[in-house]
Amino acid sequence: MVKVGIVGVGTVGESVANILEANRDLITARAGKEITVVKGAVSNLNKKRNVSISLTTDIDEIVSDPEIDIVVELMGGVEKPYEVVTKALANHKAVVTANKALLAYHRYDLQKIAGDIPIGYEASVAGGIPIINALKVGLSANQITEIKGIMNGTCNYMLTKMIDEGVAYDAILKEAQELGYAEADPTFDVGGFDAAHKLLILASIAYGIDAKPEDILIEGIESINQEDIAFAKEFGYAIKLLAIAKKVEDEISLRVHPALIKTEKMIAKIDGVMNGISVIGDKVGETLYYGPGAGGDATASAVISDIIEIVRAGQSSPMLGFKKPFASENLRLMPKEKIASEYYLRMQVADQPGVLANIATILGQNSISIDTFLQRTDANDGTATLLCATHEANESDVQQAINAIEALEVVKQRVAMIRIES
Amino acid sequence: MVKVGIVGVGTVGESVANILEANRDLITARAGKEITVVKGAVSNLNKKRNVSISLTTDIDEIVSDPEIDIVVELMGGVEKPYEVVTKALANHKAVVTANKALLAYHRYDLQKIAGDIPIGYEASVAGGIPIINALKVGLSANQITEIKGIMNGTCNYMLTKMIDEGVAYDAILKEAQELGYAEADPTFDVGGFDAAHKLLILASIAYGIDAKPEDILIEGIESINQEDIAFAKEFGYAIKLLAIAKKVEDEISLRVHPALIKTEKMIAKIDGVMNGISVIGDKVGETLYYGPGAGGDATASAVISDIIEIVRAGQSSPMLGFKKPFASENLRLMPKEKIASEYYLRMQVADQPGVLANIATILGQNSISIDTFLQRTDANDGTATLLCATHEANESDVQQAINAIEALEVVKQRVAMIRIES
Repeated sequence: MVKVGIVGVGTVGESVANILEANRDLITARAGKEITVVKGAVSNLNKKRNVSISLTTDIDEIVSDPEIDIVVELMGGVEKPYEVVTKALANHKAVVTANKALLAYHRYDLQKIAGDIPIGYEASVAGGIPIINALKVGLSANQITEIKGIMNGTCNYMLTKMIDEGVAYDAILKEAQELGYAEADPTFDVGGFDAAHKLLILASIAYGIDAKPEDILIEGIESINQEDIAFAKEFGYAIKLLAIAKKVEDEISLRVHPALIKTEKMIAKIDGVMNGISVIGDKVGETLYYGPGAGGDATASAVISDIIEIVRAGQSSPMLGFKKPFASENLRLMPKEKIASEYYLRMQVADQPGVLANIATILGQNSISIDTFLQRTDANDGTATLLCATHEANESDVQQAINAIEALEVVKQRVAMIRIES
Repeated sequence: MVKVGIVGVGTVGESVANILEANRDLITARAGKEITVVKGAVSNLNKKRNVSISLTTDIDEIVSDPEIDIVVELMGGVEKPYEVVTKALANHKAVVTANKALLAYHRYDLQKIAGDIPIGYEASVAGGIPIINALKVGLSANQITEIKGIMNGTCNYMLTKMIDEGVAYDAILKEAQELGYAEADPTFDVGGFDAAHKLLILASIAYGIDAKPEDILIEGIESINQEDIAFAKEFGYAIKLLAIAKKVEDEISLRVHPALIKTEKMIAKIDGVMNGISVIGDKVGETLYYGPGAGGDATASAVISDIIEIVRAGQSSPMLGFKKPFASENLRLMPKEKIASEYYLRMQVADQPGVLANIATILGQNSISIDTFLQRTDANDGTATLLCATHEANESDVQQAINAIEALEVVKQRVAMIRIES
């Protein structure tokens, strides 16, 4: 009998306890031993919960109980969970966590403390999709050349609705909040930070990159509007919040931002709250993993798959943390300003002679080569809209060009920019 | 140093040897030991091959060499590979195979012989997609309720072209043969047998079902024509050759056949030679796995992932064969005639009074309830086309109804039938 303690019994914790109960026979057969949740730690004992396990407010009753073999950390936050996991590891308990923020900041510290004690974290990226295991085991023959993921269901739901139904950003955000897809303060999701945490975890597995969220380029979906969507539709693009890792020689470019992607690409077809991750391996080519990125049962499915692996295979579990084998190469983070992409720019300008030439000159001076240029003068208010798609250009060059364009007197609004993933 | 011998050095075998060489550092880091191919067995030493390994025509030099730790079987066929694998296991060598036909017939025999010796077979289903590992590890908390896969790239390529470009079956088959996607005798692919072999392997993992190809319903794509495709397009369906496993109480329905699927379903979006497998778990919901189902490097990627797991985790490798843990439930194969589905029927009939009533009566007598009925009389040759979509009905009832309809004098051709997956 393997004994599990859960720290943080919210929606996911309840599902973990209930699924271990509901699928007991099957899970026992697969793990080779019976697995039982013996205790859960919560901050409020009076809150009604949909579980029958014994509860405590004292986390020590779990992390220091010699009977407990595996600690499941589902608290949320960073510093408090770090303490809890550290203590559990010090007491030689295996740990399973769904906490992406904890791992975005402390994955290498925790691995160091853990040594050979297993840490499972399949649930920390893309909920029920077994992407961690795919990277660690299924694709292990490959140098990963690229990861492109839709890893935030809130943003994908909002963008899908904005594109399919023409809903404005503010209206769809309100709807997402009412449906429980977005928090009261939605910044963590719509600002791209949640996706960035997940990307850092995947980048560690694929490349051994020890970066923190503040080291990488993160842009949210807050400024996407219906004008951009109209352009996207007209030219056959979807708009997705992508988390991207790309290997360019010995540098790894990591970034989260909205991107225009041709609708025929498989990843462009992932709509609504669903998540999907496209991985390119140098030998296998593209594989893609699709499924629910959130939800109690889906996330618990991943948590329990880690528990089963730890019980079944112990130190040989492929779920082990951020160890050397996956950080063996001499790869380093690419500085943000070196990141290259194609860009879409939308500019609201005075409808007068010379403006287009001015802007084209600025782009040229910043080594930005133009793929498509469109001018539209629908407004009848003396302004025109310029739409521009560039060939591959450098992030820093584009930022400089945007600053120069915005400094022109004829430019009426901030320049809208969305990267194009080709 | 781990020593590997390859029996059968064709396209995949060459890729296995070459990738182990090209990605040596990375693979050594991930496996924890260096892996080297020391010998390959071939039937013709004079054939030019793109590998630098030592070759022999004597398979015994591999399966009986005490220096060799892992035998990779890539021969094709059934009985000869069975002998080779059996001998390798008897000599305590781990085995990795990409041979779906071998496993479709002998997976349980081989597992029995293997005992605790690892057998890896990730490459046997859907080439480079790590679907075996997803089922064994990633989804292990779930009772699998359904598997729906596009697992034959040849058929998917042909159907995609027939739908997108209106190409006739014979023309596209010829093209697929010229491109090397289809064999000179295409029966194994277009007849559904290749997909059936793969389905049986997945059904063993998910349900422990010990069935053989001849036990299950297998229909190919040979009779799909442009009339059916026109109907599909008009009503928002794609046509795919699906391999399906469904749990209905304690019975598992296994079948391979062309199916109409609503185009908005993720699996309907998988086009061309690509493969994709949708899996529904009772807790996680739907996850889907997409990627290349064939090709030397993609298949070798899966073969090597097995080798790495065996080296890294040995007996704890999740790639172990068809053992009890995954066959723990009391599930059994559903008899073919009990399989239930919705059906699309196309009938060419004499354009005269009473025909529709006749046919509707036959359907009713066989407990088949009608969802949609369409009559068209475009032909001007005294015939009409009747199209019918049914509600869920039993396979045996539908076959009986089709026989009765075909026996009517007013029915001019064989009834075309395609199952609808809703």
